[in-house]
Order: sequence, then structure tokens, then C-alpha cells
Amino acid sequence: MAKAPKSPKLRIIPLGGLGEIGKNMTVFELGNDAIIVDTGIMFPSNDMLGVDYIIPDFRYLLERKDLKIHGILFTHGHEDHIGAVGHVVEQVRRVPLWATPLTAGLLEVRLREARMLNETNINIFRPGDTIKVGPFKVESFHVCHSIPDCVGFGIHTPYGIVVHTGDYKFDNTPPDGKPTDYAKIADLSQRGVLLLMGDSTNADKAGWTLSESVVESAFDNVFRQAKGRIMVATFASHISRIQQVANATKRYGRKLAFAGHSMAENVKMARKIGILDIPDDILLDVTRVNSISANQIVIMVTGSQGEPSAVLGRLATGNHRLLEVRDGDTIVLSSHPIPGNEEVVSRTINQLFRRGADVIYDPIAQVHVSGHGRQEEMRLMMNLVNPRYFLPIHGELRHLKEHAKLAIQTGIPQERVFVVENGMVIEADKFGMRVGERVPGGYVFVDGSGVGDIGKAVIKDREILARDGFIIVAVNVDRSGRLMGEPEIISRGFVYLRDSDNLMKIVKDTVQETLTNSNGARNGKQRDRLQESLSRVLFNETKRRPMVFSIVNER
Amino acid sequence: MAKAPKSPKLRIIPLGGLGEIGKNMTVFELGNDAIIVDTGIMFPSNDMLGVDYIIPDFRYLLERKDLKIHGILFTHGHEDHIGAVGHVVEQVRRVPLWATPLTAGLLEVRLREARMLNETNINIFRPGDTIKVGPFKVESFHVCHSIPDCVGFGIHTPYGIVVHTGDYKFDNTPPDGKPTDYAKIADLSQRGVLLLMGDSTNADKAGWTLSESVVESAFDNVFRQAKGRIMVATFASHISRIQQVANATKRYGRKLAFAGHSMAENVKMARKIGILDIPDDILLDVTRVNSISANQIVIMVTGSQGEPSAVLGRLATGNHRLLEVRDGDTIVLSSHPIPGNEEVVSRTINQLFRRGADVIYDPIAQVHVSGHGRQEEMRLMMNLVNPRYFLPIHGELRHLKEHAKLAIQTGIPQERVFVVENGMVIEADKFGMRVGERVPGGYVFVDGSGVGDIGKAVIKDREILARDGFIIVAVNVDRSGRLMGEPEIISRGFVYLRDSDNLMKIVKDTVQETLTNSNGARNGKQRDRLQESLSRVLFNETKRRPMVFSIVNER
Repeated sequence: MAKAPKSPKLRIIPLGGLGEIGKNMTVFELGNDAIIVDTGIMFPSNDMLGVDYIIPDFRYLLERKDLKIHGILFTHGHEDHIGAVGHVVEQVRRVPLWATPLTAGLLEVRLREARMLNETNINIFRPGDTIKVGPFKVESFHVCHSIPDCVGFGIHTPYGIVVHTGDYKFDNTPPDGKPTDYAKIADLSQRGVLLLMGDSTNADKAGWTLSESVVESAFDNVFRQAKGRIMVATFASHISRIQQVANATKRYGRKLAFAGHSMAENVKMARKIGILDIPDDILLDVTRVNSISANQIVIMVTGSQGEPSAVLGRLATGNHRLLEVRDGDTIVLSSHPIPGNEEVVSRTINQLFRRGADVIYDPIAQVHVSGHGRQEEMRLMMNLVNPRYFLPIHGELRHLKEHAKLAIQTGIPQERVFVVENGMVIEADKFGMRVGERVPGGYVFVDGSGVGDIGKAVIKDREILARDGFIIVAVNVDRSGRLMGEPEIISRGFVYLRDSDNLMKIVKDTVQETLTNSNGARNGKQRDRLQESLSRVLFNETKRRPMVFSIVNER
Repeated sequence: MAKAPKSPKLRIIPLGGLGEIGKNMTVFELGNDAIIVDTGIMFPSNDMLGVDYIIPDFRYLLERKDLKIHGILFTHGHEDHIGAVGHVVEQVRRVPLWATPLTAGLLEVRLREARMLNETNINIFRPGDTIKVGPFKVESFHVCHSIPDCVGFGIHTPYGIVVHTGDYKFDNTPPDGKPTDYAKIADLSQRGVLLLMGDSTNADKAGWTLSESVVESAFDNVFRQAKGRIMVATFASHISRIQQVANATKRYGRKLAFAGHSMAENVKMARKIGILDIPDDILLDVTRVNSISANQIVIMVTGSQGEPSAVLGRLATGNHRLLEVRDGDTIVLSSHPIPGNEEVVSRTINQLFRRGADVIYDPIAQVHVSGHGRQEEMRLMMNLVNPRYFLPIHGELRHLKEHAKLAIQTGIPQERVFVVENGMVIEADKFGMRVGERVPGGYVFVDGSGVGDIGKAVIKDREILARDGFIIVAVNVDRSGRLMGEPEIISRGFVYLRDSDNLMKIVKDTVQETLTNSNGARNGKQRDRLQESLSRVLFNETKRRPMVFSIVNER
């Protein structure tokens, strides 16, 4: 990029991925020109009740009407990097997208679902390509991860190159023979790197992540020993794992079927663009799995995170329309639970055992390895890139803190290491880099068709309802405030009403008594008094605190 | 035990601990005489909304009025082995308890809380003692675990000895110098073991569990490097860990304080009975920690599972009445998250980092090891005991299945290995052992003061409320069924009402329209129609499914 006489400030604004593993999104600005790297979603934690998923808060982009957004660049096709694309395209119309072939294929699927495919266009580049997006020159470089076609970026700025690693590990024996592009990274380093933005996911784990190749020999063991059908569950987008299972299927003379809409779609797309190499003659339609003998069958399924509505979840509860688990089936969970999913994954495994399957999962055999590098790989990346400044990204705060420690150990001065949260602007000019202002960088909850319409107050109410339920008492009173007829009681999630005659009698007595004592009180006051006295009585009787409401109807 | 001319059948009835890690409880019967081993609780999984804890379903004991229960024997003092003692003593009055000194101390605390201390008496024995409980001769043997004074039992029966391991590992260098009693176990084996009941917790993990001693050197590193205060979180009952921290405190010339009621109580009790050796002069009252300099302070705290109301949880959110986290504090989580708690523990760690502490936890340093043996220890136990039959206990189904595989590998024929669930009776007579009838063995939920009064229906309602909340519409109609006045709307957990004017207008229009169309319908029918039309409209508008209720008041 040519240096202007007076260069505008560089501003880097992480809107996601810091303090969390998910919803990655970073804005790079030079004056009024901007590009975005990734627009991901995040899955809700167990206490975000009823939330479907979370997208980044990108109000900042909408408020900066002077900002020209030249494009969104994607590092790879996982949900936490592309999942919010429909929402962003809807709000930032006509912003063009830039992605490698597989990522572009996955973006297309996403955009079609969101009915946003016609609102943008996708520019395809290959790992290693240099692209020009607005005033930004961006050099991509291939990195290994748990999906093919992954890249990191070297973004040229007037103050040096900013290297964004994407999600990476240094796999020296990747199954597709394409290791992380050491040469390209070293080359960027030669030309002067201002800032390294590095994936922090495994910053609290010592050593190196194992190569994807170890999974291959684990699968070999499973395939050699399995007497009946083999089912393998993994992420629908885990194309390299799918390739490995296809290879084993071929080696052992079995046939391969796919169950689960998203996986079948991804396989079709990845075969079409030539990223997945599965010969036609080993494929079997899932509706025909019962036509050949059990020891010839391999089925790849979705639901490795224990999602109850995905294939593995349905198999575990016996609710799949085509398949059921049988004695002698071997089921492999080729995945690791996302934090928060451990419990539901364990339950799924136990249910599959109960149905007669032999279940193979991570501690039992090395049927999965992480897609993210560990501490030694992070140190290697820092030494390869040799940046002046360091910004740990893609991690909970604990990971960012540990990653920062590693950076300081490898010789980056502490004052040049930024541990910040989403929404903190990192600025650069000819004097150096520093932390600047704060812009919004929180969570936007998506629940049903609502985006951002439920917040902490609604979630808090759901928490109370989840713990103790509610009770509503509706009464009719005469003009002097006396009870007329029987109170009507509606309650859910509190006690089992049919077994609670005694408690309901106490409720009715309390209503009668409260109304008598507040004789003559005005409507609103009667209501408050009823709620107070009922809350007190119910807590004394049950040691629970349901939400209590009353409706007082004056006749 | 003298053999009667005709011996009654032996029946072993697991009421807990099979298919779950928790609420351990097993009944041993010879004719009408019985003893019980352990009466534990289990913590609810994230989907058991509002449940405080779970106790075993011991209806069977209450229904068998002919059964003489001679005593409850405890293997050790953890909640999943003693926590239900108050409930059992309340229902099975005057049943005497048998426990080692520390376990007896912890039982006393539990019984006092449950106001059941005067309803029973506790007989104390030492590890290695042989006790006679009713017609049962029981030899105890010491095992290593993560709490001192742990035992397994050799229970004599007319058909051979039944060995119950309790929770164990084979720690060859335990900090208290008391390894698992190999000799006693081998001695039982010499005399003929009918059945081995073995702890399955780590059956899916290869190799050996590390010795507790490795924790000692990890603590040494932490204490040597910490510049400020050190806080260590662990289970309140983890007396051996408390001893290790006290030792390190002394070595490094610091003072030790305890925060958290249960931990302080346990320390007092364990020091009194001589199990915990902490000199008076290193103790510091927690109210006085601000009187000495930061680098002299060690504070042990509760809340290592991220419980929001325990000390560590309060420190993380800044809600503790005495203490707060400061820059320079080192906080050690000497624990491992119980399955299901991973997310809340991660969040706690991140919050503590945010408050300026350096947090040390499991992958960062070996500050915790499991109290349960792994596969090699399980194989060793089987080879030591050399039983005719094997019953894996204390584990989810996947652990029981893996443990069974190990047993078969070590030479126990498959047909003599029982993988069963709670409530399945295992019978023995002179012809051998087999699986018999099924008795109740499920969950009893404790919620507030209610024991067993909420079941699946209430939990299901809480799930719906947690996901989408509820809405209630109350209307007054005249005799011809026409709406009088405005409908009254109460809703929680669904949408944020103040921002939902538009939606509320749609609700009111729907009410008006439905009532007009069902003109003349009877009260009950109007109510149903309102609920149907509102549910439909709300789903169309929001893609959410709140619980919908209506109250129709005819004037």
C-alpha cells in the first residue's frame, strides 16, 4: 500500500472473540475505510435460557455512517467465524464477501438459509493469494485447523503488517499433505510485522497438539475390530474428518452413508468443488443401509455435541425416523464437547450404551484431536512472526492472559501486549500502538425470530421460572372488597397441583384472610397485599419462591 | 459367620451409584436381616431445573416391613456417600450407624443440620477393624482416596466374602503415609471372595492416577513464586488437601485462614479428633487477614465448583462480606469440575482474572489429582481380590461397561460380570449368583422442603418456562360473550413487555377477534379458543412458544 503524505490512523476493533470462544469479528479501519475479518456466532451458555444463539453487537458499524466497509474476509468456514453473516449482510447491504472455495461454499449455504444470498456477492481466493479490498492489501496464508481451506491474513497498513492467524495449529503431518505455510509467514515477518493477533484457545495447555494423522490410526483400530455397523459422529463441517472416515471405509471394503441434513449438504458441496475425494462406488444412500449386511456399513452422523434434535441425539433416545441403534453397533464420537456441553454429551454416550452399542470416545481412543495449537505452537508462531505488538484473540479471558504470558516469555515487552475485551479499540499511528476508546461489544441474543429483543431482565425472569415456577390467583371481589366465589388458581413449575390439595387449601385460606384484613383497600393495594401474603405463606410451606401474581376483579 | 443348616439367600440391592456418579447406597440382605452401605446424595444435572439435590429412592426398605435393618456402614465422608443420612434416619428410625472417626465427625454435622442427631447413634471403628452388625461380620480395610479415613468392606456371607471397595486409588506415596491396605485385601482374597464390587469412576482412563504427592510439589512452585496473597479453593471435606496447604504455609512462613462455614467447621472437627495437624501459631482468623502483609497470607476457601453462594463465587462477583480479590493475588483451584459444572467453573476463573488475580488451575499446574484409580489400578484390584463374580459400581453406564470389559480381560468370565442399574437385585445361593427381580431405584428430588413432591411433569413445565416464559390474558365478558373493557396481560420470560407495544396490540386484537368469532360459546370453550389463537399468533410473530393461559370472567 502506498504511503499517503499523512496516513490516517489504523484502528482495530474486536467486536467478538475476546473473553469468549465464539462470535469472532474484527473491524480494521484506516480513516473512513474499513474491512471486517469474520462474522461468527456463539452458542449460549446453559444459563442463557431459551437463547438460540448469540451474534456480535455491531451497532458501532451502523452508527459510523461515514465508514465505507469494503468487504468481509473469512478465515474459515466454522460457525463461530461465519454464522452471523446473514445478520451482518442484512444490516450492511451490498458488502462483498471474500473467502476460500470451501468457506465460500459454506457461506452460500448460510446465506441461502437467511434469504440473503442475493444481497451480496462472494469473491473467491485461494490460500496464498494476495487480494486488494478497498485500500487494504491483504496476503492470505494457509493454516492447518480442523477444516480445510483455512487461512490467516497479513494485512498491510502504513505502520507495518498486521498478522491475523485465524484458527491454527502447526500440523506437520496433516492428512491432506498441506502443512501450515511456514514460508509465507516467515516472509511476512521479514517485511516487518506491527502486530500479531493470535488464536488463544489452547493457551493453558502445555506442549503441542497432536497431528490429525493420529486419528487415522485410531480409526484403523476401530474399523479392524468392529463386527457390526460403524457410526461416526462429528461436526457437519469437519470435512477433513469426513475424508479420513471415507478413506477407512474404502480400506476396509465398507460402504459409506451420511445421515443429517447439514452433513449431507456439506458433503455434496465439498465433493462438487473437489475438496472431498469420495469415489461414487463406496457411497450408499442412507435409506438403503438395511439392504446390505451390518459389517459393510459405515454411517456418518451429526449430533456429536449431544444436540437432542440431531441424528446422534435421536439415535440415543430412539427417535430417528430411519435408523436405530442395535446390539453390535460401534459408535465413534469423533469430537470433543464444547464447554458447557459435557453433561449432555455424557448422557448421550450412556444412552447409546444402554441401547446396546459399543461407544468409542475421546479418553478411550484418540478418535479426535484439537484443531487449535498449544503453548509450543503459540511460541513458534510468535518467533516466526516476530511482531512488535501482540494481541491475543479467540479465547476466554483466562486463555488471553496465559497467551499474553507466553508472549512476554518469548521477549515481547509487557507494555506491547494488549489483553483487552470486545469493543476496545486498538489504535496505531507513527508513534506506536495503544488501547483507545471503547465501543459496544456485547452479546446480542437471537431467540426465535427476535434479534436483540430479549436481554438480562427476561433471562432473569426465565431463571426464576426455571427454579420455582409461578402461581397466579384470580379473584372476584364485591364493591366492599369481599371475596366472591372461589379464587381461580393457575400454577406451573411450582408443585404438582393434583397432589397439592392441602397447599391449595392454604392458598385459598390466605386469600380469604388477606381480603378480609384489607377490607376496603383499593384494587391495586389488594393485589399487592395478596401477592405479599401468598409469597410469604408459600415460602413457609415449601421453602420455594415461585413468582406470585394476583388478579383482582371488582364487580 | 456360622453356616445355618439351610442358609437364606443373599440379596444385594444397589439403590444408587449405578448409572450415575452419586447417591451411593447398597442394601445387603440375608433372609430378613439387612445392612446398608452408604446413603449418599447426588447433585442435579443442569436440566433438573430447580432441584436442590437428589436422594436414592428407598421405598423398598419401607415396604419390606419384615426386614430388620441392623445398621448403615459408611465407606467415607463425602456427600455422595453420607449426604442422605438425615432422610434415611428420619424414615428408618433408630437404625445405628457405623463409621471411621472422620466420617463419624462429618455424619454428626449432617445429622445435626437435619435435626436427626438424637434419632440414632454412631458406632466408631478404625480402618482395619472387624465389626459385627446383626448377623453380618464385616472386615474393613483402609483405601486411599481424596479424604482420610476411607475404607472398603469385606462382608462375610454363607457363600463367600463380598468385597466392596468404596472409592479408592492405589496411592503408593500418600501424603499421610498410609497406602491402601494391600495385605488386608490379599488376605480376604485368600479366604475366597464371592463378589467384587468396584469403583468405576475412571474406568475410561488408561494408566494410573497420579499420587497425591505430586500436588505437594505443584503447591511448592506456587508458594515459591507468589508475591502476594495466596488463596486455595477446594472441597470443604478435602481434609488431606487442607493438610498439604497447611504444610506449605508453614514451610513458607505464612499464616493460614479459612473462609467458608463448612470448611471452618470441618477443620475444627478434624483437628479435634487428631486427623488434621495444624499448629495453632500458623492459624489466623479470617477477620484479621488485613492485619498482616499480603505475602504472609494464605486463605483456604470453599466454592471450587463455582457455586455462586460459596466463598470463591462471591469473590469472583465481588460479593463477599470480608474479602475481595486484589491485583497480585494468586488463586489456586485445587479441584476438578464435577461433570456439568465445567461452564460455571470456567466463568468463575475468568471473573477472578478480570479482578486482577493470577489463577492457577488444573491444566496450568498439577494442583489437583483424582481420588479414583484408573484402569491399571482396577486391574490390580481384580487380580488382588480374585473374585468369582464382578459388579462394577459407582459410575455412569459408560464407566460400568468399560469396567466390565477390564474384568473380562483379567479373566472373569463374561457371564459372571453384572452390568446392572439401580434397583436390580443380585442374588446368591449355593448354586451361584444371578440377577433377580427389580425394585424401585430411581431419583427422589429434594426441592426446598419438598422431598419427592416434584417429578417429571413439574420439571417439564419449568423447561418450557425457562425456554419461552408464559403469558396470561384475563378478560371480562358480558353474558353474550362480548369483551368488556381491556384485557389484562401478565407475562414473564417471554418478551420484554415495555418494548413490545406492537406485540401487545396484536394480542389484544386477537382476543377481540376470537371472542367475536366464538360469540355465544360457553366459558370453557372461549378459554380454549383464546389459548389456541393466542399461541398461534404469538408463534407466528416471534417463533417462540410461551405457555399461554387465559382467564375468562363472565359478568
